Amino acid sequence: MTDNAFPVTERNKVKRVPLRGAYDRESVFAVLDACHICHVGYVVDGQPYVTPTLLWRDGDTLYWHGSSASRMLRTVKTGVDVCVTASLFDGWVLARSGFHHSANYRSVMAYGKARALETEAEKDAALKVMMDGLFPGRWEEIRPSTKQELKGTTVVAMRIEEAAAKVRTGGPVDDDADYALPVWAGVLPARQIYEAPVADAKLAEGTLFPTTLAGYLPD
Amino acid sequence: MTDNAFPVTERNKVKRVPLRGAYDRESVFAVLDACHICHVGYVVDGQPYVTPTLLWRDGDTLYWHGSSASRMLRTVKTGVDVCVTASLFDGWVLARSGFHHSANYRSVMAYGKARALETEAEKDAALKVMMDGLFPGRWEEIRPSTKQELKGTTVVAMRIEEAAAKVRTGGPVDDDADYALPVWAGVLPARQIYEAPVADAKLAEGTLFPTTLAGYLPD
Repeated sequence: MTDNAFPVTERNKVKRVPLRGAYDRESVFAVLDACHICHVGYVVDGQPYVTPTLLWRDGDTLYWHGSSASRMLRTVKTGVDVCVTASLFDGWVLARSGFHHSANYRSVMAYGKARALETEAEKDAALKVMMDGLFPGRWEEIRPSTKQELKGTTVVAMRIEEAAAKVRTGGPVDDDADYALPVWAGVLPARQIYEAPVADAKLAEGTLFPTTLAGYLPD
Repeated sequence: MTDNAFPVTERNKVKRVPLRGAYDRESVFAVLDACHICHVGYVVDGQPYVTPTLLWRDGDTLYWHGSSASRMLRTVKTGVDVCVTASLFDGWVLARSGFHHSANYRSVMAYGKARALETEAEKDAALKVMMDGLFPGRWEEIRPSTKQELKGTTVVAMRIEEAAAKVRTGGPVDDDADYALPVWAGVLPARQIYEAPVADAKLAEGTLFPTTLAGYLPD
């Protein structure tokens, strides 16, 4: 626990395998910033819903967005309690017994209440942060947002009240007696890659793949 | 809509871009079976929680498991309403305006109530289905489950009451006037790969990488 940590309460305390849990901003932000796609949990009339959406962050505040007609956005912007979960799968951990099989992963559960950004200028500024995070330089290349587009878009902001990161890395941990078994054990590491870009068939003549997207080219 | 579809209610109806929604078992199962990691949404005292976990399926029934001490499992096994969401990110869709940027993805939201499997034999049979799905043949190679391990494991089963798949594929769809702009547009396709397996340092002498895991070897 460091001074730069989120408070620990019954809500965010990591109960199973507490050694894997972390509450400091550095650990929490590292996972959130690596994720892009998160899962937003909210409740309508007692029924939980979990909606996948694009996530971005500015300091302690998480942002997501979509059509103003979205049930998820119409609900969360009323300030109800929300749980935002981001997770990355890093591979399978194969042990000598079924019981000790596991997965390597990085995850964060973040709690708070969201509010909708009100003005078109606020929304446009937040969308620029999103775009700059994903595709630095692209915001300046594309056609600017129109008033109508910003009107039809809801952007919500949620200051993180509490959060916990939970991470597993490394190989299997087997029962002592099982290490003598002739069973292959180890890790099958997984990661996400990008494949060759697919240009739109209707590109204006002479339009080249921009240097601003070079980071997405395959090795 | 086919005869082999889940019912459509206010809960699972795809409201935004309904053309992307599907309720037939084939579409729903294709996404669930490709996912492995899902996000389970549940409510405790009005607070939503979203927990990532390993998912598997047998017919209309979804399964997940973990330590019997898990808050998530202790809650969902009481038969409360649960939303299980599985999603796969397939790439970024880059348009000529910010507004038409999107992502390609496959997702399912499934609704139902879970129950805990009761006997050790039931649990072990369900864990075999999980293992056979992920690593065919491995169940027979590993050390069998003990009574104590099965006792400490909760396996829950949720028959899907309602579900919807939502899928986006293909390139950007821009405003007519924007096609003339000299802005690169297209898809940055993403996928998950496995890297070279990392053998545990304590393998019993002479233990080879098993043919049952050959499907996980990199190309």
